[in-house]
Amino acid sequence: MKQPTLIRVRYAETDQMGFAHHANYLVWFEAARTEFFRETARSYAEFEADGVMIPLVAAECRYFQPAHYDEQLAVDCLPGELSPARLDLFYRVTREDTLIAEGRTVHAFVDVASRRPVNLRKRAPHLWELLARLAAASGAS
Amino acid sequence: MKQPTLIRVRYAETDQMGFAHHANYLVWFEAARTEFFRETARSYAEFEADGVMIPLVAAECRYFQPAHYDEQLAVDCLPGELSPARLDLFYRVTREDTLIAEGRTVHAFVDVASRRPVNLRKRAPHLWELLARLAAASGAS
Amino acid sequence: MKQPTLIRVRYAETDQMGFAHHANYLVWFEAARTEFFRETARSYAEFEADGVMIPLVAAECRYFQPAHYDEQLAVDCLPGELSPARLDLFYRVTREDTLIAEGRTVHAFVDVASRRPVNLRKRAPHLWELLARLAAASGAS
Amino acid sequence: MKQPTLIRVRYAETDQMGFAHHANYLVWFEAARTEFFRETARSYAEFEADGVMIPLVAAECRYFQPAHYDEQLAVDCLPGELSPARLDLFYRVTREDTLIAEGRTVHAFVDVASRRPVNLRKRAPHLWELLARLAAASGAS
Repeated sequence: MKQPTLIRVRYAETDQMGFAHHANYLVWFEAARTEFFRETARSYAEFEADGVMIPLVAAECRYFQPAHYDEQLAVDCLPGELSPARLDLFYRVTREDTLIAEGRTVHAFVDVASRRPVNLRKRAPHLWELLARLAAASGAS
Repeated sequence: MKQPTLIRVRYAETDQMGFAHHANYLVWFEAARTEFFRETARSYAEFEADGVMIPLVAAECRYFQPAHYDEQLAVDCLPGELSPARLDLFYRVTREDTLIAEGRTVHAFVDVASRRPVNLRKRAPHLWELLARLAAASGAS
Repeated sequence: MKQPTLIRVRYAETDQMGFAHHANYLVWFEAARTEFFRETARSYAEFEADGVMIPLVAAECRYFQPAHYDEQLAVDCLPGELSPARLDLFYRVTREDTLIAEGRTVHAFVDVASRRPVNLRKRAPHLWELLARLAAASGAS
Repeated sequence: MKQPTLIRVRYAETDQMGFAHHANYLVWFEAARTEFFRETARSYAEFEADGVMIPLVAAECRYFQPAHYDEQLAVDCLPGELSPARLDLFYRVTREDTLIAEGRTVHAFVDVASRRPVNLRKRAPHLWELLARLAAASGAS
């Protein structure tokens, strides 16, 4: 089982209400996503070397509890629904046993040169199989 | 009809793909939301002076086209569904006639001191009526 | 005389002390710098099309008064010392008649392809003359 | 000897030149400063509980080499000159053996309630002694 990404809330990330500002959660999701691709597959850089980009086409987050300066949070990134055209990823942000937030991002598979959608199963079968295996294992969909 | 908030994409907001990073859209939504409250009602500061906070409890964005450095974007903020417990706001980001992104934020009405939910209709009837009128006028729900 | 760049302090830019976080000032300087190059010369984009980058190699800021959410600030960008290898720019952030902060950035002239320093006077005489004229006029050096 | 703070460059921190944007360095300095106060003294939170704030009144950074997405950087924070009115802190950002950037921040000692300067030696002798010892030990001044 993959380890969560640990985030220490930065002072610059707080707002005048004394909470971590909500836009930072998308940045933390991205940090967890980077770790997800590093640990389970290949880094973003290698994806791009394959000529495939996976731009984010949608993001959402629900905020249950505020997070505060200097708290340590754990961010889990789990693969969800996968199709040849796109991948869903799910996120859980926790502070010890408290659920702070949950989120989802949707990613399209796109050719780097043309910036057109690609069918990942045809274009990069090894990536497709790897992601399919991970999505099946996570059960997050 | 309220004017959109104009955003000039900052260099710091770009990422190495050459696009405005997706987390910034939530910050732009917030700038449009500030203008919405300034123009149509009262500023955030006055809300808080009334003892009512409206923390964001959910946010989402769909990204249709990338935005680039130094482009000027227009962000519209429209009220959507309203209940005594919460308010939905909708956003449209456009560059001239091109739709760049759409989003939504959900806000709860909360007492500043206790941080507990409040019934806005009872607690602040004038705010309630104002928001109800705006929500009805926008038709965004 | 060039107009200052107007900045509205964003909620996301505040910190839990209730002030605009100090790192944002560098971003505001950059917004003013963009306007400086747009109005007086050519945009960053055109600079890069000429094969010349002007990366920032040093930055500094002194903070005199805090800035707060939703305040409107004016940021002036003035050219300072100019040599064939580098350009200094100065910044003043004001809120009405109050001086909020002052800063400086130092920029090197670099070839886009090789990322090596270039002598701007030789490489792009028209840019050199334009900047020299502006630096002389501003008297900020 | 205190360990450096480790920073993984986030995608959101890159800019369209492909480098970590320069404003982020001030945020990384702050993360290292937090660790400095955590490990060697007391957290920011405890400082504030003592009624003393240490707002940043100046910051500077020199950039020697660009940093890139997903690189791991080490940020050292060392105390520099100390007086009853202010503290200087120095920073070094390295990637393995390469010096990426150096910086400095200047902090004033301020009373939380009045926001007026305080003489740290008189107001909080234990903090003063601790910082004096650290400043002497670091030799960074």
